[in-house]
Amino acid sequence: MHDNHATLVLKYLGINTYKEPIIYMREDCHICKSEGFEAQARVRVTLKDRSIIATLNMIQTDLLRRNEAGLSNYAWELLSANEGDEVSVTHAKPLISLAYIRSKIYGNELKAEETRHIIEDILSGQLSDINIAMYIAASSGDRLSKKEVLDLTRAMVETGQRLSWPSELVVDKHCVGGLPGNRTTPIIVSIVAAYGLMIPKTSSRAITSPAGTADTMEVFAPVDLDIDLMKKVVEQENGCIVWGGSVALSPADDLLIRIERTADLDSEGQMVASVLSKKIAAGSTHIVIDIPIGATAKVRSIERAQLLKAFLESVAIEFGVRVKVIFTDGLQPVGRGIGPALEARDILSVLNCDKNAPINLRERALILAGQILEFSPKVEEGEGKRIATEILLSGKALAKFEAICKAQGGMREIPTAPFVYTVESHRSGKIVNINNRNISRVAKLVGAPKSKSAGVELLSPLHTIVEKLQPLYKIYAETRGELNYALDFLKEAPEIFQIEESE
Amino acid sequence: MHDNHATLVLKYLGINTYKEPIIYMREDCHICKSEGFEAQARVRVTLKDRSIIATLNMIQTDLLRRNEAGLSNYAWELLSANEGDEVSVTHAKPLISLAYIRSKIYGNELKAEETRHIIEDILSGQLSDINIAMYIAASSGDRLSKKEVLDLTRAMVETGQRLSWPSELVVDKHCVGGLPGNRTTPIIVSIVAAYGLMIPKTSSRAITSPAGTADTMEVFAPVDLDIDLMKKVVEQENGCIVWGGSVALSPADDLLIRIERTADLDSEGQMVASVLSKKIAAGSTHIVIDIPIGATAKVRSIERAQLLKAFLESVAIEFGVRVKVIFTDGLQPVGRGIGPALEARDILSVLNCDKNAPINLRERALILAGQILEFSPKVEEGEGKRIATEILLSGKALAKFEAICKAQGGMREIPTAPFVYTVESHRSGKIVNINNRNISRVAKLVGAPKSKSAGVELLSPLHTIVEKLQPLYKIYAETRGELNYALDFLKEAPEIFQIEESE
Repeated sequence: MHDNHATLVLKYLGINTYKEPIIYMREDCHICKSEGFEAQARVRVTLKDRSIIATLNMIQTDLLRRNEAGLSNYAWELLSANEGDEVSVTHAKPLISLAYIRSKIYGNELKAEETRHIIEDILSGQLSDINIAMYIAASSGDRLSKKEVLDLTRAMVETGQRLSWPSELVVDKHCVGGLPGNRTTPIIVSIVAAYGLMIPKTSSRAITSPAGTADTMEVFAPVDLDIDLMKKVVEQENGCIVWGGSVALSPADDLLIRIERTADLDSEGQMVASVLSKKIAAGSTHIVIDIPIGATAKVRSIERAQLLKAFLESVAIEFGVRVKVIFTDGLQPVGRGIGPALEARDILSVLNCDKNAPINLRERALILAGQILEFSPKVEEGEGKRIATEILLSGKALAKFEAICKAQGGMREIPTAPFVYTVESHRSGKIVNINNRNISRVAKLVGAPKSKSAGVELLSPLHTIVEKLQPLYKIYAETRGELNYALDFLKEAPEIFQIEESE
Repeated sequence: MHDNHATLVLKYLGINTYKEPIIYMREDCHICKSEGFEAQARVRVTLKDRSIIATLNMIQTDLLRRNEAGLSNYAWELLSANEGDEVSVTHAKPLISLAYIRSKIYGNELKAEETRHIIEDILSGQLSDINIAMYIAASSGDRLSKKEVLDLTRAMVETGQRLSWPSELVVDKHCVGGLPGNRTTPIIVSIVAAYGLMIPKTSSRAITSPAGTADTMEVFAPVDLDIDLMKKVVEQENGCIVWGGSVALSPADDLLIRIERTADLDSEGQMVASVLSKKIAAGSTHIVIDIPIGATAKVRSIERAQLLKAFLESVAIEFGVRVKVIFTDGLQPVGRGIGPALEARDILSVLNCDKNAPINLRERALILAGQILEFSPKVEEGEGKRIATEILLSGKALAKFEAICKAQGGMREIPTAPFVYTVESHRSGKIVNINNRNISRVAKLVGAPKSKSAGVELLSPLHTIVEKLQPLYKIYAETRGELNYALDFLKEAPEIFQIEESE
């Protein structure tokens, strides 16, 4: 039979292409020749009863023998492959979901089952990155109707895990487009859980930043809990702060975001589906969504924020979920530390009610916690922030935070970096600008977020007046090598603090 | 200095990703660690004074040493790399063309220089396939204005080679969306050049089909001529039939088509820019465009064909180019042979005025040649086909064809395949359907177009009445192995000829 010739033996190459399934085959192998495959062809790879569609890369050296094939790590995983397994490789039949994507590109409104089909094929690795990118582009701007956003949200929820909780009122918060050092989450969860509301919080790790909330929380306690352990923590303490990656909520969202990020796309419709699908899958019923507005934030104008708010509220209501959107100042970094341990220190100083705790971090956390508390029928409108402040001042928030950390497997000491370097001002004057991008880069060069105690501590905020030689910021590193790496960069980088003579 | 650490030594891996620049780096190399690179990151790779943007794939095995990097073949070429060269790798700065693509996605009309910038960045390998796909999706349907199509056409022409000819009237022809076996080009060129018009024809090789015009022409004579030799042939004989790939006309078009093909996209605007940019770059002034209409053709309705015609004519006029669009029947395969040598045989039988020459191939060629002849001020409207027929019958077309082949380096004998297998009808009845897709597959399985003499010869056309055991088609192969491969396929394939009892 024709099919009997068509197998190759798998060799492990260990090539990480992130979420792109690739098969590597010799250009002169019998299958490439007989099937007339070209490089970049989409082919179906079958291993026993498992089958994926992969992109073909041709090998023209002895990396592989003629009877061998390699797979990218993602394809290897999808197929649960082992070295020596035999795979058959055939032309991929045209996908029906590709016809739906084409229909969307040509401007048609998709039916619910068409959107669902596209999302399923994305998740199972059938659609190539190129075709996912086309779907995203065709759905951007204002090209998704409200109905399509609803369908997309539902498809994303239903193709992943979905949590449920023993409470009518399950609260949550989300911030659209992070600000540097904006680590309000652990403070908010502690206050809200201390009050008695259920808040099972999942957070993300850093992707391009020096720390994500999950990275910072990990300084105190493990965050990669499975669902059972997460449930136990929440049942016991009303709240948790775990890494979202270990509970597979709305997994399609991660795949879409990865493509959107390559072109910095963030259309309303896709943002709404992204945010709400994660929260609905998490079992939340009442959500505060914080939209920081500012020139360097994701949302830059009040008009755009209003549009997003209306969209979020109207879609959420269809899922029986209450969304409260609040607008905040997105101009300034929040807190003082950048990097997991330094941000953890900021959080602890707020919970400890230290005199020197960063005021903007504390204030922001109290406002958001207050808004969440007002979801409770027992809290009157306008009373939330006062109650949140009381809980913080009473020490109950700190106690709750420690209890949550313990339940998650903590509570750990915050580590201190052995190598510290202080950068001083070259002149006297007023700080008129801080280059957040380069500050983040310094923090990453010294190893954040992998090196937990590495990072940058800002000592002089924007708009303050400094003397010559006054400390501007400190760099923390775990090794001298990493510190030198940052210092080398500083020699070349434009000044991070812009200081002008004050008159 | 920071940058001094940042080099890796190139190792040749020989991985063909077609036109996608990829760099392979060890996940644990010093650059990945210090720059915080992730798999699929877009990075700038610099080798001496050359620099490209590539997608990063991470290696987690000993395929590379820690101080080594690999490149996909396309990246290797773009950088003119040699094994042992040192490359530096840094974060890629956001491209300004990405902002233009985003703008297009959000529904804005692009300025001429914005479109130009996108096309330049596509050509120089700066934009990833994912982002090119987004640009294509955002430009599909009716989303390109006439002005944008004009700008796109101009950008595609100006970023490639452009030919010029010592004649006011340079004619050409194009067929939108090929039909199987539709090899009219060599016949048309011979007739038109014999009449005395200048027709410097470039054609493509097969991509997914068993033969392209260039593959078939190559049976008679070399087709990979450089521009100088092509000019010499045209000056001497008024015409040529060469492979377009060797003269780099509108190279951006090939890159766009490669992405469009993944989703079978063929929007009017992109089709117009694609067709016209190639012809304008080729120096053509008068072009006949053949749009076959039919259920399995690219253009399926007369309405769509009308739209395309209007679009083509109005854009062409802006470049001072005259376009005449004609609609033809796209229902039936043309000619009898499928595969280079078998199609060559059909062509020669038409030029030889054989009694058994395929009628539809002859008729089609004469209609199109006639339309082209009418571009001449000396030919009155309605007279073209008559004159074309005269030239064919007089033997002048055959003589011209032989002269062109000789000038290109021919004229070769048509080879005959040693292994022939005849497929007979299982029953008597009327042929109501021929599965063209599977016929093509058989031709490819026996090795077409690489094996020149391999392919399929259709003996009983659609709608004829056949007896039981009457021959339906013949399969030609150069080796017994290739023939068996096709026969194995036939055992499994659904019947290629559908025959119903005639009443």
